[in-house]
Amino acid sequence: MENIEIIATGSYLPKEIITNEKLNQKFKLEENWIEHRTGIKQRFISKEESIEELAKKSIEDLIQKNNFDIKKVEMIIVATTSTAKLMPGISFLMQKEFNIPKCICMDILVGCSGYINAIDIIRKYIAMGEIQYGLVIGVEKISEYLDNKDINTLAILGDGAGATLIGKSNVKKEYFSNIESLGQEGQILTCNNNESLYMDGKSVYKFGVTKTVENIENLLEKTNTKIDEIKYIIPHQSNIKILNSILKRLNIEKEKAYINIEEIGNTFNASIPICLDEMYNKKLLKNGDKVILIGYGGGLNIGSILIEI
Amino acid sequence: MENIEIIATGSYLPKEIITNEKLNQKFKLEENWIEHRTGIKQRFISKEESIEELAKKSIEDLIQKNNFDIKKVEMIIVATTSTAKLMPGISFLMQKEFNIPKCICMDILVGCSGYINAIDIIRKYIAMGEIQYGLVIGVEKISEYLDNKDINTLAILGDGAGATLIGKSNVKKEYFSNIESLGQEGQILTCNNNESLYMDGKSVYKFGVTKTVENIENLLEKTNTKIDEIKYIIPHQSNIKILNSILKRLNIEKEKAYINIEEIGNTFNASIPICLDEMYNKKLLKNGDKVILIGYGGGLNIGSILIEI
Repeated sequence: MENIEIIATGSYLPKEIITNEKLNQKFKLEENWIEHRTGIKQRFISKEESIEELAKKSIEDLIQKNNFDIKKVEMIIVATTSTAKLMPGISFLMQKEFNIPKCICMDILVGCSGYINAIDIIRKYIAMGEIQYGLVIGVEKISEYLDNKDINTLAILGDGAGATLIGKSNVKKEYFSNIESLGQEGQILTCNNNESLYMDGKSVYKFGVTKTVENIENLLEKTNTKIDEIKYIIPHQSNIKILNSILKRLNIEKEKAYINIEEIGNTFNASIPICLDEMYNKKLLKNGDKVILIGYGGGLNIGSILIEI
Repeated sequence: MENIEIIATGSYLPKEIITNEKLNQKFKLEENWIEHRTGIKQRFISKEESIEELAKKSIEDLIQKNNFDIKKVEMIIVATTSTAKLMPGISFLMQKEFNIPKCICMDILVGCSGYINAIDIIRKYIAMGEIQYGLVIGVEKISEYLDNKDINTLAILGDGAGATLIGKSNVKKEYFSNIESLGQEGQILTCNNNESLYMDGKSVYKFGVTKTVENIENLLEKTNTKIDEIKYIIPHQSNIKILNSILKRLNIEKEKAYINIEEIGNTFNASIPICLDEMYNKKLLKNGDKVILIGYGGGLNIGSILIEI
C-alpha cells in the first residue's frame, strides 16, 4: 500500500473585510460583544467573486508558491456547503480552468468537515496505486446563505478557499483517519439552497466539544499515540469557546493548536486547508512532524486525521 | 485486499406517470414523435414526495426484499444532481431515518454518473478493510429542475431512486473501474439550483457515444477481458439512440444490454441502480456472472465498472 504526503498548499480570502465594528454599528452591539463570544475580530466576504473564483484563486496560490505542474493532478475533490452548482460541480470547473487532462472530479457535501472526507478518499486512491496526485479544495461562499438579520451567524461565518495537494510518498508516512457521522442530530445546523443557514448555537457547542473530544481520544487510542508525539492540532475554526474547551478537555496546551479564527472567522470547509497553508507559509511544519487535522460540524459529521508531514 | 460483492438492491419510482400521450397533447406533437426520438413511452414524476422520501423508499424496498439488518451499514453515499439539501445531505437524513449507529455519510455531485463513483469509493473502504457494508443511493427529483416549456428535457427525464448494498466478499471477485472526467466540455449539460436543466442534445449524443465507447474499450483492454466473457452490460439509460449506437460500435448484441428506458425514462443517477434492482428481481444475475456498469453524463463524467456478481 502506497504512502501519502502533503505536497503543496494554497489559499485565498476575498477582498471585503467585515470588521466587528461594522457589525456592532449595524446591530447596535457593545464593543467587545462579538469577540468575547466568538474570538473573531473580522471575517472576509465575497461580493463580486463567485464560489468557483474563490476555488480557482486558492489553486493559483498553490501553483505560484510551489511551482507544481497542476496538469499532473489525477483527482480533484471539492468540499463545500454553499454551492448552487449541481452539475457540473466546482471540481469539474477547476479541471476546465486549469485544463487538466486526465482526472476524476467530484464535489462532496459533508457539512463543514467534508475536507477531511476528501483527504481520506484521495488517500485511498493513492494508497491503492490508482493515482499519484490528488487535489482537495475546501471552499465556501457561505455569505450567500446568511440571514442578514441573524447576528449569531453573521458574526461567525466568512468566505474563503483552501487547496491541498496530496501525493504519493516514497517513504513510509503515518496516516490514520477516524470519521463518523451523526445524522440523528443533523437538525441543529442546516444549510439548504433557498434557505438561510440555521444554527442552534448551544447544541452545536455541546456537540462540537463532546463528540470531537471523544473522536480524538479514540484516534489517539487506535493509533497508540500519546498527545506529546503530536506536533500540532489543526482544528476546524468553529468558535474560540469550542476550541478552548476541546483543548482543555484533551489537556492540550494552546501552543500546540493552530488557531487563526481571530482574523478569518469560521469558513466551514475552507478552514482547515487555510490553516495548513498559513502554517506552511510560516514554515511551522517539518518533515516527519505528526499533526492531527480535526473537522466537525453540520451533518452532523466529525472526522480527524493523523498525518505525518 | 478485500473483495466486494453486491449484497442487495432496492428501488422506488414515484406514483405519477407522465405518458407520451400527456406530453403530446400539451405540446401538440405527433403520436410517435417522442418514442421515435428517445425510445421512451413514459416517465415517473414525484409531485408530493421529497427527494429524501424517494431515497428512503428505495432503501425500504431493499430491506423488505432482502431482510438485511440495515443498522450494519457503515457508509452511505448518495449520488444526485437534483438536491437543494446542502447540509445535512440526504445520506445523513437516511442515517437518521433508519437510525444507523456507526456510519460515514456523504452526498456526491458527479453529474449523472455519480453512482459509479460512489460504488468505487465504497469499494475502496471495503478493500482496505475499513468497513464491511456500504450503501449507495442514486436518487433524483430532476422534475423540479425542468423547464416546463422544454419538451426535449421533459420527454427524457424522470424521477426515481435506486439502492445498492455492497459488502465484503469472502471469495475472490473481479472488480475494475475506469472513471474519467471531462470538465472541459461541461457546458453541454448543466443543472444548477434556481436554474432549469440545460441540455445541448446533439453534443450530448456525440459525447455519450464516442467517449463511452472509448471508456469501455479501455476497460476491456486493461482487464484483458473479451466482450463474450461479459454476461450483461448495464448502461445509464440516457436515450435509446445513444444506447443503440454504443452497442453497435462495441459490436454487442442487444440481448446483452439491460434496457428499461421505455418504461422509466432517464433518471440520471438513479438509472443504473434501478436497472440492477430489476435484474435481481427477474433473477437475471447469477453468482460469478461478470457485468459492466456504465455511467456517463453531465460534468462531463464517464465511468465504467467491471464487477463480478
